[in-house]
This record gives sequence, C-alpha cells and structure tokens, in this order.
Amino acid sequence: MRSLPGPECRRSAVADDWSDPMKAALAEAALAAEHGDVPIGAVLVAPGGHIVAADHNRREESGDATAHAEMLVIRQASTAAGSWRLEGHTLVVTVEPCPMCAMAAVWARLERVVYGAADLEAGGAWSLYNIPQDQRLNHRCELIAGVEAAAARRLLADFFSRRR
Amino acid sequence: MRSLPGPECRRSAVADDWSDPMKAALAEAALAAEHGDVPIGAVLVAPGGHIVAADHNRREESGDATAHAEMLVIRQASTAAGSWRLEGHTLVVTVEPCPMCAMAAVWARLERVVYGAADLEAGGAWSLYNIPQDQRLNHRCELIAGVEAAAARRLLADFFSRRR
Repeated sequence: MRSLPGPECRRSAVADDWSDPMKAALAEAALAAEHGDVPIGAVLVAPGGHIVAADHNRREESGDATAHAEMLVIRQASTAAGSWRLEGHTLVVTVEPCPMCAMAAVWARLERVVYGAADLEAGGAWSLYNIPQDQRLNHRCELIAGVEAAAARRLLADFFSRRR
Repeated sequence: MRSLPGPECRRSAVADDWSDPMKAALAEAALAAEHGDVPIGAVLVAPGGHIVAADHNRREESGDATAHAEMLVIRQASTAAGSWRLEGHTLVVTVEPCPMCAMAAVWARLERVVYGAADLEAGGAWSLYNIPQDQRLNHRCELIAGVEAAAARRLLADFFSRRR
C-alpha cells in the first residue's frame, strides 16, 4: 500500500482483503491494451466473495463512450442477477471511477467501491467529486482506494509510453 | 417556458428550437410508464437536426441500473455512427440528467444537453453538480433547461400518483 492523494484504507488488513480481486481486475486491464483501449479493468464481487463479472475498458473497441469497465461489469452482474439492485456487491476497479461510473455504483446500490490508482483528471470517487459518499444522494458506498495502485499506474504508463 | 431553478435559456427563441425534439422525448417518456419505469425519455439530435436515436428509461424492464434513457440513446447513436465521438450532437431529455448520464454526455463529446424538468434530488447538470460545464473536464456541453418542463413534470406526477 502506498500513501495516495485520496481516501486511505482505514487499516492495511482491510485493503489487503481486496488484493486478490484487484489482481483479477489488473489482468482484465491488460486485455484492454491489446485492442488499443486505455488499460482499465474491473471485477464485481458478490457478498460471498466470488467474482460475478469481469471486464475491461472497451471504448475504442466498441465505439461506445459509455463502455467503461465499471459500466460493463455492473450491467453483466445485473443481467445475471435479474435485478438492478446489487446490494452487498463490491466494485473492484484498477483506476478511480469517473462520475459516470461512480454514479452507476450508487444507482446499483453497491456496498463498496475499491480502486487502485487515483484519477486526478476525471475521478468521481474522491479527486474531482466524491459521488459514492455524497450525503444528498439516496445511497452511499464504502470507498477503499490505493489497492495495488502501483501496478495499475504501471499499466497506464506503459500504454501511454507505447503510444507516443 | 417557465422560470425554473436551474440554468435559464438565454432567450426563448433558442429554447423554442428544441420544443419539437422535446415533444418526441416526452412521447418516449410516456412509453416508459407502460412497463412500470419512471417516465423519462430522451432523443439524440444530429448536427443536421434529425433524430438519430430515441429511447426511454428501462431500469425496471431490463433490470439494469444503468438503463437510463440518456445512456441508451448515446449508446444507440454511437453504434449507428460507428464512433464514440458524437461531436455536434444534442441530447434532449425530459428530466435533468443524473451525474452518470451527464458524464456520459461529456465523454461522448456532445455539443449540447437540453432538458425539461430539474431534478433537485439527483441532478448532475445544475442541481447537485454541473458536470457538463465543469472546467476541469476535457469537454464542455452547452446547457439549456426548462424546455417543455411542465409536460415532463406532469408525466412524473401522474406516474407517482398512480403508484400510491
């Protein structure tokens, strides 16, 4: 765990619990880069701890501006569960969700959002806005940041250095 | 045009230009109520003025928390255009977009967001946040509010009074 600008894990044991699903999200992120998409990956973890959806950013591949990793796993899990209510579920994503994805987490009633690297340019879960914890909205998500953040940043740095 | 809490049209002639597509969005909104969804409708208008996508809120019908009218028309139009960049397009929606949908408009590089009724509980385009005009983000959308707002509010009021 690194000290990051963003919400800190309250104790490292909590964050360490999310290391394994975050590694699955990082593996997804690597797949995005293979089709020219910014390498961001996400998994959705059910209350029992198993991963019910895994996907990665597909904006370029699909030509759809809303095809962020987080949106795709929330939609997959809703379809599988047959309900838009995903209470008790945890979104694990390699990079801080943008306002679109952060609000999707609130609408889906997720219990928790866990992310790796902060996004100082468009982050909606601490950096520019803190939508999952906005007291004016009708649901709040617990927020844990900085899990395997160095690995997430490395994927992004490698991707952008290759594009230059 | 009514005076509303929210961004005002700069002159009524500008807003009146959006009355016809807003009526199409209102017709979509009425369809949502038929399957138990909150009646919110949207259309996406291409630079030439023709409607390239029309849809309504399908959260309950689809069991997907992200199936807001705005998300559906942005995704439809992207698929049709074969690109996530929808420059010059205008999103016309009966109710103020939430932060999820407002950010989707920014990501899709929409030129303009036109809405009817304000959403004081979860609005992301004036009421709680003003995401389409956040100077920190990499794109801004023009914002026009209050177009056919009374009709949008009437649909919502009828829907909720029937559910009580």
